Amino acid sequence: MAAELEEVKLFGVWGSPFSRRVDIALKLKGVQYSYFEENLDDKSALLLKYNPIHKKVPVLVHNEKPVAESLIILEYIDETWKDNPFLPNDPYERAIARFWARFIEDKCMPALWKALWSNEEERDKAAEEASELLQILENELKDKKFFGGETVGLVDIAADFIGFWLGVFQEIVGLRLLTNEKLPKLYKWTQEFANHSVIKENLPPKDKLHAFFKGAIEGLAASK
Amino acid sequence: MAAELEEVKLFGVWGSPFSRRVDIALKLKGVQYSYFEENLDDKSALLLKYNPIHKKVPVLVHNEKPVAESLIILEYIDETWKDNPFLPNDPYERAIARFWARFIEDKCMPALWKALWSNEEERDKAAEEASELLQILENELKDKKFFGGETVGLVDIAADFIGFWLGVFQEIVGLRLLTNEKLPKLYKWTQEFANHSVIKENLPPKDKLHAFFKGAIEGLAASK
Repeated sequence: MAAELEEVKLFGVWGSPFSRRVDIALKLKGVQYSYFEENLDDKSALLLKYNPIHKKVPVLVHNEKPVAESLIILEYIDETWKDNPFLPNDPYERAIARFWARFIEDKCMPALWKALWSNEEERDKAAEEASELLQILENELKDKKFFGGETVGLVDIAADFIGFWLGVFQEIVGLRLLTNEKLPKLYKWTQEFANHSVIKENLPPKDKLHAFFKGAIEGLAASK
Repeated sequence: MAAELEEVKLFGVWGSPFSRRVDIALKLKGVQYSYFEENLDDKSALLLKYNPIHKKVPVLVHNEKPVAESLIILEYIDETWKDNPFLPNDPYERAIARFWARFIEDKCMPALWKALWSNEEERDKAAEEASELLQILENELKDKKFFGGETVGLVDIAADFIGFWLGVFQEIVGLRLLTNEKLPKLYKWTQEFANHSVIKENLPPKDKLHAFFKGAIEGLAASK
């Protein structure tokens, strides 16, 4: 596959942890790509063409062939550009990495979202559930620098929401789900993650993210 | 990996399409294994040991190392025993297969379940949603024998519920979601799937499945 013939496009949204997973992955691999910012209130004809089933970002388009769903895109990237692998070689270790990536996707993300944005009556219970899931990740991390070991892997990239967004959002909402006191290993991981030389260049600006979601929350509260 | 040293165990439930995916996969690969039937009302200590996070079947245990989550197990099996591959070699084709397997898992399964078992007021809307998703699969199947082409692949195995259970369940409930008239290609696929020489030996007995779920439904109706 000759590098000069590659055309890689990413359709995303700047503040989306799902989109940013793909930015991070492409940058870690050193892949050149063109980025197209989508407006989810007025999706482009290209987005609808490339992801007609889900109509969602992110979509990666490689030489005109589209791939949707961020975790599937990450594996595609890992299989297409083989330097700096996100997954280990051993089938069992690969299965374990996929297990944790799916645990984050299917369990942690919905629970954290609910804890952060549910109304006051539901918040305590939702926060407790989310905290239990984060504790499971704390236990799994053990004393590794990254979930992938010494280097960033599939699970770390899948967990970008926990590594960066959660800190911003819990500050807006006034919740303390992930702190150094409660979950010291996972907290340390968030610092390693967000300060990684490639990743830190590919996270949304913290103040912009803070302002955007604070505005969204206040708008929501005012509309109730 | 010497075959004589392999110890493969599967913890499952006879009527579960998720468990049966793993039976089918192991049989297609020609892997010898011991099967352990679980009682979901009284889960075994081994199941809880091997799948402490989700506490669900199926769990595959290969030389004492457990793998949970059926779609992850399928990829593990495909990477460990390489004959009769479930996934193509090409990274793009692999991504597309994973996309459809996840579409079935995350979209079709919940929608079909809701259409089949929701109460009468909700059933029409749920049935319409499920039918739209099945139509998408019909379009994707095109004129292929299997989703994987000429041979059974990841998507076919992931779709075992549609290939077998749905026909039994829609009969019990009196719904006509997947019929030869409505979705001729997908219907033809269900026939190919359920009559495949390996698969047909690894599906639950139709009369037992019918009786079990008819009893469950009547019990549910009587308890309302």
